[in-house]
Parts: sequence; C-alpha cells; structure tokens
Amino acid sequence: MSTEIKSLNEECGVFGVWGTPDAANLTYFGLHTLQHRGQEGAGITANNAGSLSFERGLGLLADVFRDPHRLGRLQGTAAVGHVRYATAGNHGLENIQPLEFNFSDAQFALAHNGNLTNAMTLRRNLEQAGAIFHASSDSEILMHLIRRSQASTLQEQVKVALQQIHGGFAYLLLTNDRLFAALDPNGLRPLVVGELPTGGIVVCSETCALDAVGATFIRDVQPGELLTVDDSGLKIDHYTTDTQLAICSMEYIYFARPDSNIYGVNVHSARKRMGAQLAKEQPVDADIVVGVPNSSLSAASGYAEASGLPYEMGLIKNQYSARTFIQPTQELRERGVRMKLSAVKGVVAGQRVILIDDSIVRGTTSRQIVKLLKDAGAKSVHLRIASPPLKYPCFYGIDIQTTKELIAAQESIAEMRQSLGVDSLGFLSEQGVIDAVGLPTSAPYGGLCMAYFNGDYPTPLYDYQAEYDEEIRQAKRP
Amino acid sequence: MSTEIKSLNEECGVFGVWGTPDAANLTYFGLHTLQHRGQEGAGITANNAGSLSFERGLGLLADVFRDPHRLGRLQGTAAVGHVRYATAGNHGLENIQPLEFNFSDAQFALAHNGNLTNAMTLRRNLEQAGAIFHASSDSEILMHLIRRSQASTLQEQVKVALQQIHGGFAYLLLTNDRLFAALDPNGLRPLVVGELPTGGIVVCSETCALDAVGATFIRDVQPGELLTVDDSGLKIDHYTTDTQLAICSMEYIYFARPDSNIYGVNVHSARKRMGAQLAKEQPVDADIVVGVPNSSLSAASGYAEASGLPYEMGLIKNQYSARTFIQPTQELRERGVRMKLSAVKGVVAGQRVILIDDSIVRGTTSRQIVKLLKDAGAKSVHLRIASPPLKYPCFYGIDIQTTKELIAAQESIAEMRQSLGVDSLGFLSEQGVIDAVGLPTSAPYGGLCMAYFNGDYPTPLYDYQAEYDEEIRQAKRP
Amino acid sequence: MSTEIKSLNEECGVFGVWGTPDAANLTYFGLHTLQHRGQEGAGITANNAGSLSFERGLGLLADVFRDPHRLGRLQGTAAVGHVRYATAGNHGLENIQPLEFNFSDAQFALAHNGNLTNAMTLRRNLEQAGAIFHASSDSEILMHLIRRSQASTLQEQVKVALQQIHGGFAYLLLTNDRLFAALDPNGLRPLVVGELPTGGIVVCSETCALDAVGATFIRDVQPGELLTVDDSGLKIDHYTTDTQLAICSMEYIYFARPDSNIYGVNVHSARKRMGAQLAKEQPVDADIVVGVPNSSLSAASGYAEASGLPYEMGLIKNQYSARTFIQPTQELRERGVRMKLSAVKGVVAGQRVILIDDSIVRGTTSRQIVKLLKDAGAKSVHLRIASPPLKYPCFYGIDIQTTKELIAAQESIAEMRQSLGVDSLGFLSEQGVIDAVGLPTSAPYGGLCMAYFNGDYPTPLYDYQAEYDEEIRQAKRP
Amino acid sequence: MSTEIKSLNEECGVFGVWGTPDAANLTYFGLHTLQHRGQEGAGITANNAGSLSFERGLGLLADVFRDPHRLGRLQGTAAVGHVRYATAGNHGLENIQPLEFNFSDAQFALAHNGNLTNAMTLRRNLEQAGAIFHASSDSEILMHLIRRSQASTLQEQVKVALQQIHGGFAYLLLTNDRLFAALDPNGLRPLVVGELPTGGIVVCSETCALDAVGATFIRDVQPGELLTVDDSGLKIDHYTTDTQLAICSMEYIYFARPDSNIYGVNVHSARKRMGAQLAKEQPVDADIVVGVPNSSLSAASGYAEASGLPYEMGLIKNQYSARTFIQPTQELRERGVRMKLSAVKGVVAGQRVILIDDSIVRGTTSRQIVKLLKDAGAKSVHLRIASPPLKYPCFYGIDIQTTKELIAAQESIAEMRQSLGVDSLGFLSEQGVIDAVGLPTSAPYGGLCMAYFNGDYPTPLYDYQAEYDEEIRQAKRP
Repeated sequence: MSTEIKSLNEECGVFGVWGTPDAANLTYFGLHTLQHRGQEGAGITANNAGSLSFERGLGLLADVFRDPHRLGRLQGTAAVGHVRYATAGNHGLENIQPLEFNFSDAQFALAHNGNLTNAMTLRRNLEQAGAIFHASSDSEILMHLIRRSQASTLQEQVKVALQQIHGGFAYLLLTNDRLFAALDPNGLRPLVVGELPTGGIVVCSETCALDAVGATFIRDVQPGELLTVDDSGLKIDHYTTDTQLAICSMEYIYFARPDSNIYGVNVHSARKRMGAQLAKEQPVDADIVVGVPNSSLSAASGYAEASGLPYEMGLIKNQYSARTFIQPTQELRERGVRMKLSAVKGVVAGQRVILIDDSIVRGTTSRQIVKLLKDAGAKSVHLRIASPPLKYPCFYGIDIQTTKELIAAQESIAEMRQSLGVDSLGFLSEQGVIDAVGLPTSAPYGGLCMAYFNGDYPTPLYDYQAEYDEEIRQAKRP
Repeated sequence: MSTEIKSLNEECGVFGVWGTPDAANLTYFGLHTLQHRGQEGAGITANNAGSLSFERGLGLLADVFRDPHRLGRLQGTAAVGHVRYATAGNHGLENIQPLEFNFSDAQFALAHNGNLTNAMTLRRNLEQAGAIFHASSDSEILMHLIRRSQASTLQEQVKVALQQIHGGFAYLLLTNDRLFAALDPNGLRPLVVGELPTGGIVVCSETCALDAVGATFIRDVQPGELLTVDDSGLKIDHYTTDTQLAICSMEYIYFARPDSNIYGVNVHSARKRMGAQLAKEQPVDADIVVGVPNSSLSAASGYAEASGLPYEMGLIKNQYSARTFIQPTQELRERGVRMKLSAVKGVVAGQRVILIDDSIVRGTTSRQIVKLLKDAGAKSVHLRIASPPLKYPCFYGIDIQTTKELIAAQESIAEMRQSLGVDSLGFLSEQGVIDAVGLPTSAPYGGLCMAYFNGDYPTPLYDYQAEYDEEIRQAKRP
Repeated sequence: MSTEIKSLNEECGVFGVWGTPDAANLTYFGLHTLQHRGQEGAGITANNAGSLSFERGLGLLADVFRDPHRLGRLQGTAAVGHVRYATAGNHGLENIQPLEFNFSDAQFALAHNGNLTNAMTLRRNLEQAGAIFHASSDSEILMHLIRRSQASTLQEQVKVALQQIHGGFAYLLLTNDRLFAALDPNGLRPLVVGELPTGGIVVCSETCALDAVGATFIRDVQPGELLTVDDSGLKIDHYTTDTQLAICSMEYIYFARPDSNIYGVNVHSARKRMGAQLAKEQPVDADIVVGVPNSSLSAASGYAEASGLPYEMGLIKNQYSARTFIQPTQELRERGVRMKLSAVKGVVAGQRVILIDDSIVRGTTSRQIVKLLKDAGAKSVHLRIASPPLKYPCFYGIDIQTTKELIAAQESIAEMRQSLGVDSLGFLSEQGVIDAVGLPTSAPYGGLCMAYFNGDYPTPLYDYQAEYDEEIRQAKRP
Repeated sequence: MSTEIKSLNEECGVFGVWGTPDAANLTYFGLHTLQHRGQEGAGITANNAGSLSFERGLGLLADVFRDPHRLGRLQGTAAVGHVRYATAGNHGLENIQPLEFNFSDAQFALAHNGNLTNAMTLRRNLEQAGAIFHASSDSEILMHLIRRSQASTLQEQVKVALQQIHGGFAYLLLTNDRLFAALDPNGLRPLVVGELPTGGIVVCSETCALDAVGATFIRDVQPGELLTVDDSGLKIDHYTTDTQLAICSMEYIYFARPDSNIYGVNVHSARKRMGAQLAKEQPVDADIVVGVPNSSLSAASGYAEASGLPYEMGLIKNQYSARTFIQPTQELRERGVRMKLSAVKGVVAGQRVILIDDSIVRGTTSRQIVKLLKDAGAKSVHLRIASPPLKYPCFYGIDIQTTKELIAAQESIAEMRQSLGVDSLGFLSEQGVIDAVGLPTSAPYGGLCMAYFNGDYPTPLYDYQAEYDEEIRQAKRP
C-alpha cells in the first residue's frame, strides 16, 4: 500500500458486478475498499442496456470521480472497475483501466491484475501479424488473442486466448451482454465471487470489497477457471485443467487487507500466526513489541502474545498524506520518514524494543525507523521480520523486477544487521510462513508462491528467463 | 479527528517559529503533524525581514499548498501557521487563520486555538465603540483589545488585552519584530515550546510537532503566561497570576496525538492506563478486546493487558478517504460507516467481544459499529467507554455546544445499552480518568477540566450562562 | 481590459440588485458583462430574508463560480457583486469584494470601485482611535466611518461617512434590509440605475449590465448622491451638494464597454467621433486604416470614415488566452505579443498603414505591434492615438500611480516616434476628446476628468500631493 | 469556432515540427494559434532522441498544460500536436490525439484532421482480420493499414495505407526517426509547410501557426502528397497522382483564421470580397452595415465598402466565456445569446440595419441576434449571408452529418425570412463564393468543395451513400 511506508507495490485491484441497479455506484464503493491495491489511476465502465460507458483518470478513486457528473454518466446494471498501480515511466492515461475496445459490432472493457511472463513474445508475434498497441502494459494482449481466435463462440474465443498466456493474472472482461472473469492456472492473484441481496453477482480481488457492498461470499475463483455472468446467472467453466495452486504469499504477508479472506484463510489471522511463529523462531530478551503501522500490526500482536511481552504502540502513523512539492533543504530531507511516522517517546524511551516489520525491501525505510526509535530513547532495537528475506524478483504482478535493490539479495544477515543499525535481526522461515497460512492443500509450499524468497517459480519464466539469469549472475545473494 | 469515525471536533492547531531560515517550510511540516486538530482550512504567515506574507485556503494543508508557488512566496526567518476546524455555517474563507491585520505602521498575524466565554459581551462593547468585524469567529477580538489598549508598549498592550478575555485559548501572534504566545489562565488548551538545532524557537499545540521539525522540547507553556520570542531569544512573562490548572481532559482522552506529551504525561500511556482502569472498574466475561481505530487502540490495549484477554484487530479502518458526491440509494446509505470501517470476520466470528471506544457522542456511529461486529458473527458485544458519559457542553474550544445530541445527556445507561444494541455497557469513572492521567498537582480534578462529564466549569460561563441554564433545564440528563 | 493588449487597468465593476427572486444568478450574469473592469477576483453576496451569505475567490467570475454549489448557496432576493482588478502585491483573498462585516446585530457587504485620496490620513486617524484593518486596500475605511458615526439612523451614518472621504468612488452597500449606492462628488466612476421587468431595482457600473439582465435604464447616478433601495422602492438622496461633474475621460476612451452609455453618451459612438476628429487633426497620406483590437476598433472606423480611407482588419486578436508557465527561450520570448495578436499579411503587405490605438501607456506593446506590421510587409506605419498623451498619474481608481513608466511623460513626440519605430505619430487634442464626448454641461473640460493629460485634478490630492509633487519634479514631461 | 456564436464545428488542427530544440514549446505556441479549430481536447507528443513522450487532456490547450510539468516532460527536437473538436457522445480521453502506438520496436504518434468516407468498411474488414480498436473515431485505421502493409519500407507502407483510405484528411505521423505529413487527393483540409530560422521544418493546418512560431511559409501541401521530414531535411513524395483540387469552401467562409492564407489566398481578403460580391448580388436600401462578431466582420466590411454604406459596430462580443452550471430560470434562459453578444443601442436605434453573417446553420442564433437588434431599436433588419444556403451534410471533417437541423434544407427563403424575423434575406451565390476566393485553377467549382451547398461531392461517399440517400429522401430542401 502506498500509504504504507515501504516501496513494495501491488499492481491492481478489480471489481465487477452484473445484475443490479446502480452498478457503477456499487463498483465505486467496492473499488474504494480495494484502493490499497493501486493508487495511481482508477476507472469504471458501466453497461447500460448493452452499451458501455467509460470513465478513467489518474490518481485516487475519489479524485478521479470528484466531479459527480462522472459517476452520474455511468448508468446501467453491470459494471467493472479497476484501481491501478503503475511502475515508473508508465504513468500515462493510456494504461489506466478498464481498457476500452470499440468494434463495429461489440464493445469490451478489460480490467487486469497481474503480469504475463510471455507477453513480449506474444506481443512481437501479434505485431508481426499486424496488431497495433496503444499502451505499453501487457493488458491489451488478451483482447488481441480473443479477436484473432478462430473459435466459433465468444466463450470459446476467450478460452483459446487464455490458453496462450502465461504468468499471474485475474481478468474481468465486460461485454455488451455478459461479464467474464478468469484466473491464471496457479491462482497467483486473488479473485472471489459473491452475491448481492438483489441477486446480482460480484467478482472482485478481495472479500473486503464484498463486505463493503453487502455481498455474501460464494467462493474463491479457482486456478484455470473462466466464469461467465449474464442475465441467466453465474456459470463456472475452466479453460485449462493443468493447474497447481501457488497463491502469491506476499498477499498474505503484506498486500491484502487484513479483513479479507483468501482461500478461506483470514489475512489478519495468518499474519498474527506469522508473528507468533516468528516469536518462536527468533526470540529475544526485550521489554516491548512494536509493529510498523499499519501493515505489521497483526504480526506484532502475534509476536507479543506468543512471547508474553507487552504489545505497545511505539510508532504512530500520520493519517494525512503530505503531498508536497517543496524542495526540502538538506535539513528537511533528512527527516524523511518522520512526516509519515512518529515514535512515541513515552513508550519506547529506555526500553529494549522488538520491532516487527512484515518484510524488508530496500532497507532504507527500516533504517530510518530504527533511527526514529533510537532518537526517541529506545535502549536497543531488535528487528524481527515476519517473512523470509526477499531475494528474487517477482514476474507475476508485484513491482520487484530487479534484485539489485533488494537488500537481502545483496547482504548477509550480519551485514544487514549492521547497515540497518539494529541490535539484532531475525527473519521468519519459509516453513513458518507456510504453516502460518495453513492452506489445506498438498500443493508444493503449502499452495503458496514463495519464489521471492527461494527463486522457485511456479511457472516457466519465458521472456524473463534471460533477465532472471542475469540477475542471478549479478546478485550477491548470500 | 475527521479521519476518526465520530463527530467530535477540536477547533484548531497552531505552530509558530522564530529565528530559522526556511521558517514557512518548517511550519508546513509542523502543521502537517497537527492536521488532526483541524481539517477545514489552513494558513501560514511568514515574516521576511519584518514584512508579513499570508497564504490561506479551505481544505487540508496539503490541498491549500498543492501549488508549490504558495509556499515559495512565504520567504523569511519566522512564521506562524494554523489548521482550522470550522463549525457548520462558518466555513468561509474569512475565518481561515492566521488572521491578517494591516496597519499603516505594523502588520499582525493571529492564530488562535480555543473559545472565549465572554466574546459576545466584548464584541458588543467593541462594536458600540465603533469596532468593525469581518469574521464571525471570536478570534478578531484580541486584536481589537490590543489596538485599543492605552498601554505604552506592545508587550503591555497584549497583556492588557489578554486580561480582558475569558475562556480557553492558546494564541500565537506574529508581528514585524517578534512572536507572542499566550495561554489562558486554566491552561485549557495545550501549548509547548521547543528549540531547533539552529537555535530557533518553536511554539506549537503539541509536542508531536516539535518532534516532526527536529526541535527539542523545552517546556509546556503555563497558564497565564505570555511568551515573547524575538532576535534576542525567548522571554517568559505572565499577564495574570490568578491561574488554576484545568487542562481539557478530552485532549488526553481523544484529541491529542498519542505520541504527544501534555504537561509531561504521554497521551498514549495515559490512554492505556485509562483502558487498564476501565478493565478494573467494568470487567466482563468475554473472549477478545477490540478497539475502535484509531483513537481507541491505546485504551483497548490497556484494557486487554489488565484483563488478561487477547487484544485483537477486529476492526479495520480504510486508509483512503471516500469523499464523494454520490447520492446514495437507500441501500447504499444504510452502509454508512462501512466505507470507513470493516469488521474482520475471521477475528470476531463466534466471539464475545469487548469493544473499547474512547467516548460516545451521539451514539450513531457506535450503533453502526456494533451492527458491523454482529453482522460479522460476534456472539456478543460488550461496549466499554474509556471515559465518563459526556453530558455537558464545552465552551472552551470543542464542538459540543448543545447537549441535545449527546446521548448520555438524554438516556440512562440502561436506555443507551438498548438503543446501541450492545449486550452490556460500562463507562470509566471520573476518578479513573484523573488517576490514569496522574498529573502531579493539587488542583481540583487532578488539574483536568472535567466539565463535559460533571458540569463543573473551571471558569464563569459569562455569555454562555443563559444558554447553559437552558440546556440544563431541557436535558434529561440521568 | 486584461484581454486587451496593454497594461492599463480599471479597478473594479459593481452590480447590485434588490427585490427579485434569483438575485444572485442575476448578479452573476450582470458581473459577467462587467468582467472587463476586473479579472483578478470576484464575489457575490446574497441577502436571504435579511441574512447575508458570501462567496468570493481569486480569478475570473466563471472560475470562482465553477463549482455550482457556490451560486446555489446564494439564495435570496437581493445581492451585490464585484469584479476586482488588483494592483501587484495586493493579490490576497482578503481584498476580494464584496467585503464582509459581521456585527452582533447587523451584517454588511461592501463593494467599491474607485480610489480615495485621503485614505492614508483617514486610516491613520482611525488606527489611532483603535480601528483594526484586515486588508490593505482603501475599501474598509467607509465601514469604519459608518460605525463610528454618532448619527441616529443608518442612512445618516452613511452620509456622515461619505462626507469624510475624498477621491473617486462608487459604492454599493448591502445590509440586512436595504441596498445603498453612492457616487463621489465628481462622478468620476460610472454608476447607473435600472429596473427589472419584475420591478426589482439594479444599480451597476455600466448600462451593458442592465441590458444583460433585461433591466430598463432609469438614470445615471449623479455626483454626490446616496440612493437607497428597499422593499418600499428606490429613494434618491444626496450627502453633499458641493459637486462638479468630472467623469473619468478614460472610461470613454478605453475602459467602458462600447455598448454602454455614460451620462447619455454611447461609448462606441464617442470613440468613433474621437477617431473622426483625429483624422481631422492628424491627417496622413496612406492606404489603409487599421485599429488595434479590440478597444481601438471604434476609433479606427471613425478615422477611416472621416478620412475616406478603407478601414481594414490588418490585425487579428487570438480569442484564447495563452496562460502558460513555460519559461520561454530567448527565441520565444521575443515573440511576445504574437501570442495575442497577428498581422494579416494579405491586408498590410505593401501598404502604407495608419495604425489607430486608443492610448499609449508604456509604449512597449505599440512597439511590438508596429514591428508585427512591418514584418508582415507594411510599407510604412503611421501611428495615430485617439486621445492626448498620458502624462500624469491617476488617483481615482486607474492603475497609473507613477509617471515613470508613461512614455509620454518621459519623451517628446519626436523621441516617441523614433523609439516606437513609426513613420509618423499624432495624438488627439484635449479639446478633440471633449468635443467627441460632447456632454451637455458647462462644467470644466466638458464634464470630464482630463487630469492624466493635463495634471488638472478635479479634487485636492490630499495624501497624494507629496507623491505627485515628487513625480512632477522627476518627470521629463515634455 | 466555439468562441463564435453558432454551432458549426471544425474537427481539428495539427502542428508538427522537426529539427529544432524546444520542439514541444514551439508546438504549444503553434497549437495555441490553431485553438479555433478545436477546443475539446489537446495533446503534444515529443521525440527526444528517438523516444516519444505523450501528454494529452480534455479542454483547452492552456488547461491541459496548466501544470508546467506537463510541457516540461516533453523534451526533444521534434514534436506533433493536435487540438480536437469532438462530436457529442464522443468526448472520451481515448479520442484525444496525438494517438499513441507502442510497438516492441517502434513508437508512433498520429494526429489527424478530417473524416474518412470508407472508414466503416475498412474498420469492419480490419476487425474481421483480428484488429482491435480502442477509440470510436476513424483515426486508428491508418495505423492498422500501415502495420498490415507488406511493403518493405515504412515510407512505402504509409503510401500503401494512404491509398486505401478515402475522404478528407490531413495526417501528421511522428515516428522515432522522422515526421510524415499527408494530404487527401482533393486537398479538402488545409496543410502548409514552413521553415524555422533554425532550419527546422514545420507542417501545420494554417499559415497563422507558421507566423506564430516565426517560421517562413514554404508551400501548401498538395493533394495526394506524402512529405517526410527527418534529419536530412524535407522530402516531397506523393502516394497518388489521381488528384483533383477541392478545398473545403467553409475554410474560407468560416473556419480558418482571417490572417491565414490557403493556397495563396488570404482568408480575410476572400471574405471581404465575398461581402463585396454579396452587396452586388443582394443590395438593399438601408442605413448601416453590421457584422456578427467575430467571424463575419471581414464580409461585413466588404459589403459596406461595396455598398457605400457605413460599416458600424452594432454588435459587441463579450470576451469572457460564461461557463456556468447555473440552471437558469425561464427568464434567464430566454436571454441566451445575450451572455455572448450585445447590441449597441446608440448605433442601431432607429436605423435600417444590414446584418451580415457568414453562414446560417440552424437559424436559432440568427433569430436571437435579430431580436437583440430589434430590442435595441433597429427600425428594420436585413439579413445577408456571405455564402449560399447550407443544405447538404459534410463527410470530410465538418460537424454537419445530418441536414435535419439545417434550416436551409428545411425551409424556403421566404419561410426562413419569416421564421428568422427579418425584413429581408439574401444569400451569396455559389459563383460568388468561387469568384471571391479566386483560386487560379481549372478544377471544378474553382478548386473548392461546394458540396454543402449543392450536394456535388468531390469523392464517392462509400459508407455514407445510404445515409446520404436517406437524407435526400427526407429533406424538404427547397
């Protein structure tokens, strides 16, 4: 979450609904709950008696729809929406979703969460066959594949298209007469289905959005499935049976909202168990346990409970964003993270603090937080991370595509301890994560993708293989 | 705090600095930390070699200063800033502070936190003597009194003016050659002094703003004091010795940031002690303790610790504001608080929940939160309030000027229990608050103003006496 | 007009209405027509059953009221509005009018067009008597004088106040139960009265605003008058009989809209006669007559008609404003006026051009226009100015308070001819202006203020006398 | 022009430049001069060392680029820009140009002025071959055709693509290493080439934009040409020799800026000759000639000169736009055009007025202007139109695609006279237009497209033929 302190970013949230009046307003409320999955752009497409209308813009959902006319224009009984996180240099409007496609005989709105591993190859092939691309993101590819499929029905065309792409993806595709939802064969990205009191069907990234719009959870979309919702209801189909559960473990560790459930496991509770397990694996003699707000509070309370140490609010997060264009003086620049976080002197002064964070990316923020605590009088700071060291890039939708900036890929634990300025440092084990999540599955790694920690990717890397090999070659990964 | 869930509002935060380059930028950062004290307007005035420049606007600080030119125009080595909460109908730009006064031979910028009890009388008298008023707030009055004083020096004029006003107030007054800071004779509103590494002096509402700008705490401003900061440094004077400490207890209970210290007492720690004391006074047989985010988390953790029950994150607060102009359908309207808060089903389902809130104003939000928890499967909800019932209006700067909408002034505990839909309800005692804060003073109520709870106001009510008497007559205060 | 090419600025337009539903909307439309009188701020105050509401902001009227809620909040049957031109350094919101005054027993909204010559003295005296001033403009002074008057009725208080001020002024003052309108003893600024079909009364700066709202012209407000409009209708009173007509001649020459009538004389027709008279006084052997758009087109057509030469559209004005923050390269900077004006090559190439401008202030724009014409192939450019040389400052509401930048105060005609790069140069005589306007009066200068041309001010200069004397001393006025 | 009073709209202006530092800023200034060709969206693409950056937005150019960072991001030595007029329902951001295309090995920016007549057929064919379309406008088609061409070089691919499209078009296509410019085989839309003092080459819609950036006119792009500009300079090629000049006559009559030259003919001068010719064809005994500002002023002055009657400024145009969301009362609604135009009573009262307009579309505005003049006291109003009656739709880029709302297609001259409320009505003949423009060509209609007047389209109508036939069937075209 960008409101969090670190620079680890999800690449989108999706929300779709079919069969309810006021569909765009519902989508607005649903997306609002998914705002933590992307803050750089938002859009909603409504289906009004078979005709699609689009509204999109840069910024937070509430900014994009600040002009009430924008939602007002989106009449209809079905809608899809999207909140987007954009990687640097890729901030243009043309990438804001839902993507819009207008044909003589049909319209499509496409909302995509994830990343394809064979996008470059597909794109090159499509371009050689005359395809044109507006945006620089992967998301247009699916539409090309659908339209070029020779299958006889749209349903079959979509399946043929899905069979050609690889990687992590959750798609919503709104057409003039139905809503498709599809999930990749590993279930890397979350996607759930619910039902409104009115009978309308909702498909969205997290269960928290179902709660927000008053929908009842029906089921998680399963790997390889293609769902269709139209006026005759929800149909569940699959475009492949060659599936293997490998849910992104970072969804449990960091991305998803604590009140969401993923494959039946509550995110907050999983984090709390990670904290408890961390206490067992990495105990330390100290006075208080402090979590980095807000994402690490669950793990911190788990650690505290398991260790028997008091859980204390030693860090406060400012609730207001400090967007500013001020060119800070050197003096101000050094204060950095202090605009977002404050240490509570009355709590930490003179204490031996166990600082719990969910993960470490570059380490720069951790370093500043440690300094904040020491400046506030902490006698010692023992950093405990409720996940294993992040050492490998993600190619399925999280913004870590190089390991150069991953501190754990460059430094040993001892080096990190020193460079972060902590008195001790410990990470949760891979098995600890797997046990804490505790999915009832026989899939490898307990049904989780643990590739960021161990380099064991659940799919071939295709276009990224060469890049990855080079990363491996360069990494000083201990 | 408007980011909090309830409708109890502070009326401002102030920040002033003298003797440092980049004074306006520092003030921006300081005010950012005080944003919880007022979100409806903000302004900064800078003193550049004796000449004052003003920038003000409606909305959050970051909105007012979104155009970087606005801060850029505020050059100088001294500044004062203000964040404002405005009562309804009073939202005009003319009330945004610092107020600006331009005389042939002098300029003044006035920033005010508080409320005067003899404002109407003073205003009427001033008007009869020809004074003209632009704004509808009290804040102009001080300037009139200063300018009409016959005293020979500005310092004396300010003292004469301060002697004529009553109520709760913390003033910052920036002139062409100095910065004044004054506090009311009861110290109802917080005001602290700190020193920058550069030697500059900061005076501001809370210590958290000192931390934000890297200033070292020097002292709390004491009741009845008038501080002067100029190029020769900080001078401490007093305009009255007839003082009696009566700090607003709601600052400790709800308003102030947890990382601030007021008269040496850390706010978070005080709240935690209130929670612990509440556990002693109002125990209940239950499974988990859940606090209403964010203001009640300290008290909830104190309750949990003292009761030996687990402290759980059963409620999640959405970090993004949902400003919207959508006219919600009946269906959407009912969802109300759900845009801001979510219950974590995995945590509360099947549990007997002790819900901790810091205070209850109207009860409407509490009612919705209770429903949220029950809808999420809570077996029972036991509401515990970490302060006594709010029964009386405040005339010193908090936005409770009528008791008609205070549920505790209208209903008995049994009635409230029923109307809130809780399984049991309990409040912290007055003595519990006093002990939890624990100021080392012999002043009544342990140096706190407890008037909202017991009607015992530390000052005469002057212009509000009739209004208060009428309130008392009408209240069904149990 | 800021949409004009030169830097000569009026200081405001006012519009008031009493006794019609939808008063604020009417005021919006009326002010829109007066926008040429001030573009830096706008505001409207409405009287709803005796209670005043204010909306003000920086920028054009349409920008200030872009949010439809702002006009929506201004309910009521009476209103006053103001468009403001602000001198540099004086751009703050506190100066945007109508000024707002809130007393315990009354509210006032004050809209002011003009400038007082004894403002500094009055202000100093008022300050010594304890008055406080928010804004840096003159406009607050009247309110102080009214409130300090010992007269028994508000009507008398206003008269007493008006008797104390000197200079050029047209005031509208909206109270809880009536609308006042007052004009200075020389009628320096225009002010007219009209009647709506509904019976409501309108008082505003120019007749074009009457036309815009469908009001019928009743009469020009006369020097020294105080009008009162309330539910019993329009009453005409006067606060002084010591009057002498001296209408600002620049209103006829440049400021007022061509479709307005001032004291019965249509502005366009007056300008056309000035052009005709200029042709007689300053003939030249040439091929075509070209006016500087838009303000000089009337005079140019008069010149063409009188001289028998063709009137040609040799210069085109871009209808879109080119607000931009681009830091132009040297190359771009030189283009300057080309963003606003273009020469029509097909018209001017090979021609001897008589270029008509209404006046010359600094000469910089004229110089660029001449270059534009020559670059477009004009064989020669003969500049003819439809007014006398501007040599003296104005103290009554026009933004010329120093003669340092007035080219005609610094250079002889021959010098100007050279520095402007024209082949010949001629100005209209003072008598030419007086005759062209042709007011039926025996007042000096035909009832016009000609002070900018001859230094003969219709009033004592009071606070400006010293400044003026210094100007005179320094001027190289030929 | 939307700043004009009528509802006849051009569909875009284009500006491209190659080989100059500060290319995007130059494009900004050039587009500013072309703003009359489209006000609903604007965009600029810059080529920085072979890499393209895009900035686009809804609204006027100055609004889109209000944030100075947007232009700042557009570094480079080449650029293309576009201002867009959008037909209703087609207002989305996806249609704002330059369109952006990103391929693995290339980027393209496409700016298009015009309309294709075989777009629907091409689109259907492309879709059947798997092409996907984002926008609903025609402009994407060219890119598809280029990418699907089997030709061996990009230059040849572009030519092959251009050979497949029909209608009116002027294209600019910026690639990583060159700038293409192409014009349709009839030269329906204007396009000119110029050279900067720095040696850079500019291609743009009108010569006024060359003047604005200081470029020297080189030549009009000729029908059927494909120009290429790269670091080796300008090359002129053609994709077809089957050409026939048929310049849109409405460019001369109404659209183009008066200071532009099209095929060597100055627009203002052509209009003036149309006015003179109109005086000969449609004389009337009257007192004054008044033009509708601003577009008809040239024709009016021509009429006046030829008729010997005085040309008078009887109508004034408000220079400020009155954007507002006010829901006007019936009373206000009736005022309509009065917000934009005012009659000068002093000029028209008691006069027999010849009102000159360049064209009549629906007649609603004319009706209001006539009423304006009569309300201002005009004794009679004789309407003279400086072009023939508009009776047929345009399929080449002007927003008249149905004749249902064209008054001249529905009513006879006598009927129009009555419904417009004029005392007499006359139109310029087709031959009058042709002679007044006076292009030195033997092409039919003097090289002009006169189809709006006579239904004689210079190209087959392709996809529009059926629509046109239906129009013809329904029209009451006299």
